[in-house]
Amino acid sequence: MERKENLQQDKGALNVRSGVEGGHDGLTIKPKKFKKKSPDPVNINQLVEEIRFGHRTSLSKAITLIESSHHEHKEQAQRLLQELLPYTGKSIRIGITGVPGAGKSSFIEAFGTMLCNMGKKVAVLAIDPSSTLSGGSILGDKTRMEELSRNKSAFVRPSPSAGTLGGVHKKSRETMLLCEAAGYDVILIETVGVGQSETYVRGMVDFFLLLVLTGAGDELQGMKKGIMELADGIVVHKSDGDNVQKARRTVREYMQILHFLQPATPGWMSRALPASSIEKTGLSDIWEMICEFEQTIKRTDIWESRRLEQTKEWFHTMIRDSLIDSFFQNSNRKIQVKSIEEAILRGEITVTQGVSKLFP
Amino acid sequence: MERKENLQQDKGALNVRSGVEGGHDGLTIKPKKFKKKSPDPVNINQLVEEIRFGHRTSLSKAITLIESSHHEHKEQAQRLLQELLPYTGKSIRIGITGVPGAGKSSFIEAFGTMLCNMGKKVAVLAIDPSSTLSGGSILGDKTRMEELSRNKSAFVRPSPSAGTLGGVHKKSRETMLLCEAAGYDVILIETVGVGQSETYVRGMVDFFLLLVLTGAGDELQGMKKGIMELADGIVVHKSDGDNVQKARRTVREYMQILHFLQPATPGWMSRALPASSIEKTGLSDIWEMICEFEQTIKRTDIWESRRLEQTKEWFHTMIRDSLIDSFFQNSNRKIQVKSIEEAILRGEITVTQGVSKLFP
Repeated sequence: MERKENLQQDKGALNVRSGVEGGHDGLTIKPKKFKKKSPDPVNINQLVEEIRFGHRTSLSKAITLIESSHHEHKEQAQRLLQELLPYTGKSIRIGITGVPGAGKSSFIEAFGTMLCNMGKKVAVLAIDPSSTLSGGSILGDKTRMEELSRNKSAFVRPSPSAGTLGGVHKKSRETMLLCEAAGYDVILIETVGVGQSETYVRGMVDFFLLLVLTGAGDELQGMKKGIMELADGIVVHKSDGDNVQKARRTVREYMQILHFLQPATPGWMSRALPASSIEKTGLSDIWEMICEFEQTIKRTDIWESRRLEQTKEWFHTMIRDSLIDSFFQNSNRKIQVKSIEEAILRGEITVTQGVSKLFP
Repeated sequence: MERKENLQQDKGALNVRSGVEGGHDGLTIKPKKFKKKSPDPVNINQLVEEIRFGHRTSLSKAITLIESSHHEHKEQAQRLLQELLPYTGKSIRIGITGVPGAGKSSFIEAFGTMLCNMGKKVAVLAIDPSSTLSGGSILGDKTRMEELSRNKSAFVRPSPSAGTLGGVHKKSRETMLLCEAAGYDVILIETVGVGQSETYVRGMVDFFLLLVLTGAGDELQGMKKGIMELADGIVVHKSDGDNVQKARRTVREYMQILHFLQPATPGWMSRALPASSIEKTGLSDIWEMICEFEQTIKRTDIWESRRLEQTKEWFHTMIRDSLIDSFFQNSNRKIQVKSIEEAILRGEITVTQGVSKLFP
């Protein structure tokens, strides 16, 4: 099968392979070095069938198509996605964030493995704004999530390592839909708690989980403001060994804060729970909480209306992004905006006058 | 002087007068009913001088010019503002928000009057998104801030009662600059805690004050998420009579929550204080806190760099707003977007395909 992959020559070739082997090699992918060449035709109908049958190679290939910046690939990707749309939306989408060091990947490894053992099919995606800047990837490290990556019921996909955050976001949403069409029941979307990434992730998931460590509050320094108010659940992680007592206290502290904050999802009282990925404790409680959330929210119309709202918002965000992108596409524009900005900051012209210069 | 005002015939005529009398009559102003007619010329140089000498009539007239949607008025307003720019920026800008019923106007009345008695010149502006929708105004009620309105050292301006929130925001920023040029030391900007208004206000002030009532947390329901993380100070209001003990407890509770949240301003630990506008207690403590804030933050470069950042952000927001406005100016566009949106929500086309239809 591998040898028939038309996309092998493309930048996604390694990803396609890694999908088969369950490994990934984000750090060695250097998309910039690959030359664009006219891609060979992709048999969309065949790909649709294969994805629906849960072929991981085909899913990887489809994601590579989605991530490709080649014009023809883009069109093929959208046709493919359009065909698969009726089979999407059936998973529970879970966003996972946390400060660096909170142990996101070891948590996902342990939590995802538990879900697989329960008979679930689990897909893991990542939204990593740092990869846009550094070319690195939070999932780039080969040694991360090794056990989960090898699990037949899991699909671990490194984050797309090029493009703007808006682009990464778009691709992750579409990747999520592809995974759903391939029959994955649980989609875990990992993100780091910096910049706009959690707002993006919150806008594409049903349940949002925040990983923290003991010593509530202090380690939230440096995270995005209002992050706690995005969370449907907080996991006090590394609640093991000597840390168990401390973690319990931290859970109580977070419960107290959550009482004062607005719920992330109307009708759901966000809660904090302790867990250990090493001792594998608390993991099933977290899954039970998520199941209870699903049952509770599905009883109202919030589940479905939120998903529709998210899709609508995604559409409008993409309109706005496209407008801004095309406005700044003209390279002189950036220089012009910069020089107007400087005149404004020097107090020479008013902001309104500055804007008038751009839109005469 | 009054009879010479060329703008008397304009929509702002009542505001110009109310500036003189210190009253306001927002509810009776119906801007829609005024026909646009070619405005008489405004003597910008004279207006600049008068504003710099602190003439309230001239300041009112200038604000009317800023708020006018007439093309010539707009140009005159910008020329005027440009002339006055060198004299702006010397006030302390304080944003004040709170849930409905928190007593924002009685607080501003008491707090502003105290500041006037201390020899300060105080300007009160309002950003009221509800006025955009209902045509009403949070400052429209004649009976509100009656004492402060009559004070010679105060200038109370009702919120602009027409236009988009973006427009209101823009006008309020420019109104703030005019007040600074007219020598007001303290600018109080009132807003209701709904929608985007506090984010707008946070983006134009130095210090952001949140008014709450006793029973911490419960009344924050319905306020914008993350509002507490915007606040440099929290006032537990109506701390009077039987309420004093309860208010003290609430202050302690808020202090605890603030400990867990990120500071609104780097280098400043946000705090909570009790106050009563009826018994006039705690008001001077709040002013002392704000002065301490100013001293602390001015020692770093955050004061100035934040103001520059705010102006820059204002410029870029206006560019984005202009792009989106001009895109949707075509009336067919809205219909087109709506029909694409519906096709997306029905699952017929992908979001990316929908966007491609708009940007072929």
